[in-house]
Amino acid sequence: MAPSHEGVVVRHARREDVHTILQLIQELADYENEPNAVEATPESLLNTLSFAPSGLVSPDNTTQSTGDPISPTRPARCLLLFTPSGEAVGMALYFYNYSTWRARAGIYLEDLFVRETVRGKGYGQRLLGELAKECVAMDAGRLEWSVLKWNTPSIEFYERVGAKALTEWQTMRVEREGLEELAKKAG
Amino acid sequence: MAPSHEGVVVRHARREDVHTILQLIQELADYENEPNAVEATPESLLNTLSFAPSGLVSPDNTTQSTGDPISPTRPARCLLLFTPSGEAVGMALYFYNYSTWRARAGIYLEDLFVRETVRGKGYGQRLLGELAKECVAMDAGRLEWSVLKWNTPSIEFYERVGAKALTEWQTMRVEREGLEELAKKAG
Repeated sequence: MAPSHEGVVVRHARREDVHTILQLIQELADYENEPNAVEATPESLLNTLSFAPSGLVSPDNTTQSTGDPISPTRPARCLLLFTPSGEAVGMALYFYNYSTWRARAGIYLEDLFVRETVRGKGYGQRLLGELAKECVAMDAGRLEWSVLKWNTPSIEFYERVGAKALTEWQTMRVEREGLEELAKKAG
Repeated sequence: MAPSHEGVVVRHARREDVHTILQLIQELADYENEPNAVEATPESLLNTLSFAPSGLVSPDNTTQSTGDPISPTRPARCLLLFTPSGEAVGMALYFYNYSTWRARAGIYLEDLFVRETVRGKGYGQRLLGELAKECVAMDAGRLEWSVLKWNTPSIEFYERVGAKALTEWQTMRVEREGLEELAKKAG
C-alpha cells in the first residue's frame, strides 16, 4: 500500500518557482558530496527549463504567462512536490528520451530529490509514479535514470519500485574543451 | 588529421529517408547480437521522430513538407551520412538532455552506426563531430551516449575522440508492465 498523501500537491514548476528549484538542486548537490558543483542560477534556469503556465490571471482575464514548449534548448521539465502546509520538499527534473528499436519516446529522470527531513513518507515513489503516469499517458517505452553506484539505499529503493539496473552499459561523456576539439574534426 | 571526406554529405533525416533509417537500425541490432529486437516500423518511425523539411518544392513553389518541432512525443532527430555515390551508410540518432547543475541543455546520442563495409574512414568520428558542432552552437553542456561494456573497440575509439567513461554511475530502467505498476502507486 502507498502511504496516504492527503493534502500533498504534485505539479509542474512555473517561473515563480525558480528559487525553490535552485534551493532543492543545491540540497541535492550537498547530499551527493558536491556542494560547489552547482553553476545554475535563477537566470540560467529561467532560460533553459520548460515551465508550466503560471496560472495567474491578469486584470483583463488573460493568463499572464504561457508555458514553454519543449525545444532543443529547453528540453527539461520539473515536477515539484508540496506538503499539505505548502512547503516544496521534493523535485523530479526530467526530459524526453527515445528508444530506437521500439520507435517510442520515453522519459529520462535527470534528478530526483526529496528533502532529508521528510524522507520515508513515500514522496520519492510518488514523484516516480507521476512520471510513470506521464509515460503511460504518452505510450512511452521507458522511464530511465542514473544513480551513483555507492548509493545503495537508493538502488535498493529503485529496485523495490520495479527498476532494473542496466549493468551491461557504460555511459560516455564529452564536455567543455572536449566538445570544441571534437567539433573541429567535423570541419 | 581527419581523413578527407570530399563528396560525403551529412544531413538531417527527412520523411522520405524512413526506410533507410529502419535498414540502418536493423543492421545495428544485428551487430549488437539482437537481430529480433527491432519493433520499429516505417509508420512508427514516421510518428515519433522529428524530421527535417523534405526540401522538395511543390508546383506552386512552396515547400512540400515542413519539419517537425521537437516535442515530448517526437524528441529525437536523426543525422544521416551519405557516401559520394549517394549511399546512406551511417546514422546518428539523438535527443536533447539536460544538466541540472549547469542549467544547460545537451545532446544524448541514442544510436551511432556506420555500416561495416565502410568502417575505418572516419565516418563515425564525423557524425560525432557534427553533434559536437550542434552542442557548441547551442552552448550545450555535454554530449553523452552509452556503449555496451563488451564493445572494447568502440570504447577505445570513443576515448580517442575525447570521451570519458562515467564509471561511477549506474543506469536504472522501468518499462512495460513495470511502468503501469509504478503509475498506479501515484494514484
